[in-house]
Amino acid sequence: MVQLDAIQKRILAEVADLHEVPAGAYNFRANGQLAGRNSTAHIEISSKADGTGIDIRIAPGTKNESVHIPVVVSASGLKETVYNDFYVGDGSDVLIVAGCGIDNCGRQDAEHDGVHRFYVGKNAKVRYVEKHYGSGSGGGKRILNPQTEVYMEDGSSMEMEMVQIKGVDSTQRMTIAELKKDARLVVRERLMTHGDQQAVSGYRVSLNGEGSSADVVSRSVARDASFQKFDACIVGNAPCSGHTECDSIIMDRGKILAVPSLEANNVDAQLVHEAAIGKIAGDQIVKLMTLGLSEQQAEEQIINGFLK
Amino acid sequence: MVQLDAIQKRILAEVADLHEVPAGAYNFRANGQLAGRNSTAHIEISSKADGTGIDIRIAPGTKNESVHIPVVVSASGLKETVYNDFYVGDGSDVLIVAGCGIDNCGRQDAEHDGVHRFYVGKNAKVRYVEKHYGSGSGGGKRILNPQTEVYMEDGSSMEMEMVQIKGVDSTQRMTIAELKKDARLVVRERLMTHGDQQAVSGYRVSLNGEGSSADVVSRSVARDASFQKFDACIVGNAPCSGHTECDSIIMDRGKILAVPSLEANNVDAQLVHEAAIGKIAGDQIVKLMTLGLSEQQAEEQIINGFLK
Repeated sequence: MVQLDAIQKRILAEVADLHEVPAGAYNFRANGQLAGRNSTAHIEISSKADGTGIDIRIAPGTKNESVHIPVVVSASGLKETVYNDFYVGDGSDVLIVAGCGIDNCGRQDAEHDGVHRFYVGKNAKVRYVEKHYGSGSGGGKRILNPQTEVYMEDGSSMEMEMVQIKGVDSTQRMTIAELKKDARLVVRERLMTHGDQQAVSGYRVSLNGEGSSADVVSRSVARDASFQKFDACIVGNAPCSGHTECDSIIMDRGKILAVPSLEANNVDAQLVHEAAIGKIAGDQIVKLMTLGLSEQQAEEQIINGFLK
Repeated sequence: MVQLDAIQKRILAEVADLHEVPAGAYNFRANGQLAGRNSTAHIEISSKADGTGIDIRIAPGTKNESVHIPVVVSASGLKETVYNDFYVGDGSDVLIVAGCGIDNCGRQDAEHDGVHRFYVGKNAKVRYVEKHYGSGSGGGKRILNPQTEVYMEDGSSMEMEMVQIKGVDSTQRMTIAELKKDARLVVRERLMTHGDQQAVSGYRVSLNGEGSSADVVSRSVARDASFQKFDACIVGNAPCSGHTECDSIIMDRGKILAVPSLEANNVDAQLVHEAAIGKIAGDQIVKLMTLGLSEQQAEEQIINGFLK
């Protein structure tokens, strides 16, 4: 693995909780270049022939292994689109961590658009963690537009944790999923925007197989003059159950638009959604202030608990 | 009032619960023609100069009076658009009933598109009931496309009951409302579709004034191969509270698309929505069947209760 500088190491810790080279398979990308790669006996990472990204092939039956594919951008003006395909073998049980951090100290925008496709085999289990983070004092924007596609075979399950807490100026994220028989998808999204950031998050989950289910929950906080749009659609094409929920805290001059939708195309589709937007309840703040916190500290504590 | 025939009388009973000429102000429209009108000391109904509809002027302070403006269409091939404007004076308290029924025994489509605009004065209270009904054995479609606009002054309140239970082949309904300070809007929509009917219902409620509030609840049943789309948007532009809820029962090969949305543009806007789509719970049917009902009777009873 090539040497990373101090900024890159800090970003890596933020997006992948990595302080050193991880055990298992990994692929590090820094400023548009491969910075380190490790395949294992069961997990093979290879560059696509056309140079547009990587293929990750997880052998059937692989258990308790992990893949880390963090991306670090610390060069102003870099704009890249990367295609990563995950072939998760039948019956495997793996953790995939795919954070991206941008540190932009320059005047030009820095943008990373990752297109991740997951082909989840029969009865396979995937836990997927994606953290996005931006930092840097430059005037250039930090832009992340992730696109995620999930194709789930019979009996498979996938748990996705999507986190974007800080520093990303603009994000357009789209996640589509197609579930076969008895497949289960769980999504937990946490999003915080501040300054004049813009975030758009869309989901389109198609429950195509009998017994398939999805649970998509988004929690977000819009501070300052930031704007968020949450647009989750659950489509029931079979006997299935789907739930989507969007809870948002609005602060300052933040704006939030929530448009979850349900599409029931089968009489045995059971679909539910809920959404709530509001500011932090005044009595919660007062309660924490009586415990000795300042108003700002009380707010921070409530937000941290909400986004945990 | 001109004489109505038996079919027209039956439709009138369905859409306006009227079996005879009502007390108070009324305007009956039958097959595109004025069929009867009565103004009162406080409520004046007049035809628009350009012949496109009527103006209803309710004097300030008018209390406990009612206006009935039912429309009956029993001629195949009739297609009409009518503009009715309601000027509700400050501090008045009135009931407005505006049903429309189409009996189409012919081969051509019959269509009535009513555009209703309500200018609700300060502290005025309006209860508005709109029932839509279709009947007739002809191959021609029964089409109703109501458009409703509500402009509410400070402290006014409006309760809208919108019902379409039976026989309307195609409906595109759009309701927009703009609320000033302390205005309150309550909407109760009940919708049942069957056969291959199509129903689209959209709401856009803008809470512009401090202390304004809206509560929009839709209950619907989609039977046979019918399709429904429910699209309610609540926009919070001020310290306000909004709630929207869409509960739907799906049967047979019915399809339902629910797209409620919340748009919070003010930190003191509190917006909530919920939606649920599912079929009738099996245990509810079994329970009623143990009481001696057939499966079909049990279903009917549950649906009637749900839409009540």
